[in-house]
Amino acid sequence: MNAATGGSEAQSERSRIKRNPNRAAYDRETVNAILDAGYMCHVGFETDHGIVVIPTLYVRDGDSVILHGSTGAGMTRAVRAGNPLTIEVTHIDGIVAARSHFHHSINYRSAVVFGESKEITDVVEKLRGMELLVEHITPGRWEEARKPNDSEFVQTSVIRMKIEEASAKIRAEGPGEEPEDLKLDYWGGVIPVRTVLGTPEPDAVNEPNIGVPQSIRASIAKWNESE
Amino acid sequence: MNAATGGSEAQSERSRIKRNPNRAAYDRETVNAILDAGYMCHVGFETDHGIVVIPTLYVRDGDSVILHGSTGAGMTRAVRAGNPLTIEVTHIDGIVAARSHFHHSINYRSAVVFGESKEITDVVEKLRGMELLVEHITPGRWEEARKPNDSEFVQTSVIRMKIEEASAKIRAEGPGEEPEDLKLDYWGGVIPVRTVLGTPEPDAVNEPNIGVPQSIRASIAKWNESE
Repeated sequence: MNAATGGSEAQSERSRIKRNPNRAAYDRETVNAILDAGYMCHVGFETDHGIVVIPTLYVRDGDSVILHGSTGAGMTRAVRAGNPLTIEVTHIDGIVAARSHFHHSINYRSAVVFGESKEITDVVEKLRGMELLVEHITPGRWEEARKPNDSEFVQTSVIRMKIEEASAKIRAEGPGEEPEDLKLDYWGGVIPVRTVLGTPEPDAVNEPNIGVPQSIRASIAKWNESE
Repeated sequence: MNAATGGSEAQSERSRIKRNPNRAAYDRETVNAILDAGYMCHVGFETDHGIVVIPTLYVRDGDSVILHGSTGAGMTRAVRAGNPLTIEVTHIDGIVAARSHFHHSINYRSAVVFGESKEITDVVEKLRGMELLVEHITPGRWEEARKPNDSEFVQTSVIRMKIEEASAKIRAEGPGEEPEDLKLDYWGGVIPVRTVLGTPEPDAVNEPNIGVPQSIRASIAKWNESE
């Protein structure tokens, strides 16, 4: 098994999908596509008070996932304590209505990623991590806003999780059915679900001559197309 | 502190929000509103292979959250082993662009819920849990599809998490700014983000006379309005 690229089988029991294994994938290309299609992940980690799951922004950088947060945040402290992070990303694509309740389902793409996480201490690499985050969510924005000053830079922790193991799970089809249910007078199909970025709302203090900049237009186009 | 209703302060360090405490709320009404506005949560739990975070469907039932899954799924086994679950729900409402990168942000509503979780064994209560899940996601659907047979009923585990402690975090405003940044020629504002349910796609095996039923129309209306 090549840990850098994944494969068609789970690397270990940690990432092996037991329920509906036909929906599972372990190759890094599939996992990466799911990661790249979003910017909000759900991070689980151990704290002194038990397991916490929080939402946070992310960007994939090759075989790593970059996160950021306040230096005093629980996630940062967990990383400093050497606790592993587990990252989950899910995109909902549809609500699947079957003839039976049992076969009702959701069309989705999800990825669960495990790996060692470390705070980035190198100044150049840390600044690059910030830029990658900004450019992933709002492409072109790095040059269209003020860069971090020294105080802002040290208040922000940037974390790199090296992807050691990952699994993807995808459902993208109409309802499964028991053959005998097809004669029932019930409707079957899918309600498509998508996330949409709308018309940007400038705040009140924009200079009158500032229109919506290219980075904001590009962000809207990127995320509306990624659906 | 009334554990049933929460309060304006964290019940313990487990749920206390350290970063941006001005965005935190601990009252049960705020938490419930966030839970009720969605149907996909992110569940963290300990397994023999470390912490896992998975997406799963849920419905709030009073002071509980109801989940379901395969009897053999990792989450079910964690509950049977007595491991606590942590549930997180997040709605993204906007991408916030500030004059500085430091003040770029996301408008969101998130809730993190802790509590003891148990498989529901009582047949009537378990069936009611299934109905609550179906009716939350697709209102009216319980009577518009075939109910579980004995085999389907025993293959499905229904879990009740009693909400013991919870926190909410909400950001719903334009960009924060350093006063000196307001004179810069950068655009500030919010790109609204919403989740949209589209036109239902019937599968190929619908009887010709079956139109889109009321439950599917109601589901689209409910989730498009909840945004």
